[in-house]
Amino acid sequence: MSDAKMILPRTGIGLDVHAYASEDLPRPLWLGGLFWDGERGLAGHSDGDPVAHAAADALFSAAGIGDLGTHFGTDRPEFAGASGVTLLAEAARIVRAAGFEIGNVAVQFVANRPKFGPRRQESQDVLSAAAGAPVSVTATTSDGLGFTGRGEGISAVATALVYPK
Amino acid sequence: MSDAKMILPRTGIGLDVHAYASEDLPRPLWLGGLFWDGERGLAGHSDGDPVAHAAADALFSAAGIGDLGTHFGTDRPEFAGASGVTLLAEAARIVRAAGFEIGNVAVQFVANRPKFGPRRQESQDVLSAAAGAPVSVTATTSDGLGFTGRGEGISAVATALVYPK
Amino acid sequence: MSDAKMILPRTGIGLDVHAYASEDLPRPLWLGGLFWDGERGLAGHSDGDPVAHAAADALFSAAGIGDLGTHFGTDRPEFAGASGVTLLAEAARIVRAAGFEIGNVAVQFVANRPKFGPRRQESQDVLSAAAGAPVSVTATTSDGLGFTGRGEGISAVATALVYPK
Repeated sequence: MSDAKMILPRTGIGLDVHAYASEDLPRPLWLGGLFWDGERGLAGHSDGDPVAHAAADALFSAAGIGDLGTHFGTDRPEFAGASGVTLLAEAARIVRAAGFEIGNVAVQFVANRPKFGPRRQESQDVLSAAAGAPVSVTATTSDGLGFTGRGEGISAVATALVYPK
Repeated sequence: MSDAKMILPRTGIGLDVHAYASEDLPRPLWLGGLFWDGERGLAGHSDGDPVAHAAADALFSAAGIGDLGTHFGTDRPEFAGASGVTLLAEAARIVRAAGFEIGNVAVQFVANRPKFGPRRQESQDVLSAAAGAPVSVTATTSDGLGFTGRGEGISAVATALVYPK
Repeated sequence: MSDAKMILPRTGIGLDVHAYASEDLPRPLWLGGLFWDGERGLAGHSDGDPVAHAAADALFSAAGIGDLGTHFGTDRPEFAGASGVTLLAEAARIVRAAGFEIGNVAVQFVANRPKFGPRRQESQDVLSAAAGAPVSVTATTSDGLGFTGRGEGISAVATALVYPK
């Protein structure tokens, strides 16, 4: 019996933070791959979706092939305005091209709002379709503390498992 | 040789933050499933134990079945005042009922105090018994920075692995 | 076919934060196992490298054998001034001596600077050699928010997988 039967996963971690956009330059809120009507939007390149960005960074981290800056930096201007869902799909493609299969991705974001529960499944469906693997999304608050508690921005942290093909 | 031998774990992530209770309304400190005599307590529903809550959220995240709010929200008022240990045990039961076995859970909390080392094993024993799987608990500080550094609250972050049964 | 063929990994988590050293007592910056010439250094015991420290803590967490304080506390004064790379190598040795093999470690740090991309591979090489296993390192910012955004310090978060031998 050879060791070749043993599939050893690799773990990865991804963090992302986006500040709310200035009220003078309002933007739409994109979070967890979804548009949130009537909610204050986040600043940032692309759509500023910290959930999708953290998920993509966790995949790159697990594969050991850099981060969002490595892959979607100034070398690839075609992604300058891309949505988080587009970036996550492209990250998954790059990770697979580097020789890995994706086990799953799990993301939790920290924000006072919006109320996420009613749209959690919809968010997971959109992000899982983009990654071609299960993406779970959960939400919490920081109990009024720190920059998320003061409503200055939204943070997200993700883990991912990938497997050498 | 079938692929059925390959057990592919799923990873999950959980964060939890609780602010210290007001000095006008002192509460006992529960942290890592233990009561800490003489320490300032945390605010929050149930006992405000961020270690137990982060562990439970990491399990839900790994299984892809929502979060603490999904399972212990207003629909289940019987858990409104439950201890963190009780919530973790119920989370583990729900995750198993959803078809997963639990590999392990690892939690690290960030706080200036209490001194955790002497009671680490006791904490791990209580939480591992609740989860029915190994739960490791570690501690650090944020070097005086941010809300944990200013002593405004305690944060915890957890990862978990689960396996489809 | 016995269950003995199934290698079940354990996940771990590690966080570390170091404040920048006072300008009155400047120190060199060590980050990701590398010296960064001309950059403001971090305070702390040893070299204050949050990437190496988070990686070591994630390994201890995965193995369930305590944390940096447990292993490099006042009981082992010979590590009081050790570099992060030395601590990571010793952590890996301790984890292996406790009966585990190391799968991989993934670390992401949050800082406004230095520019990490050009030296990412060099950092990964140094830390992977120390751990005797793949260590991936990625970087992000907190978009100007919180203590990392204000340039008060650098934080890092790591996950690790270990396997019982």
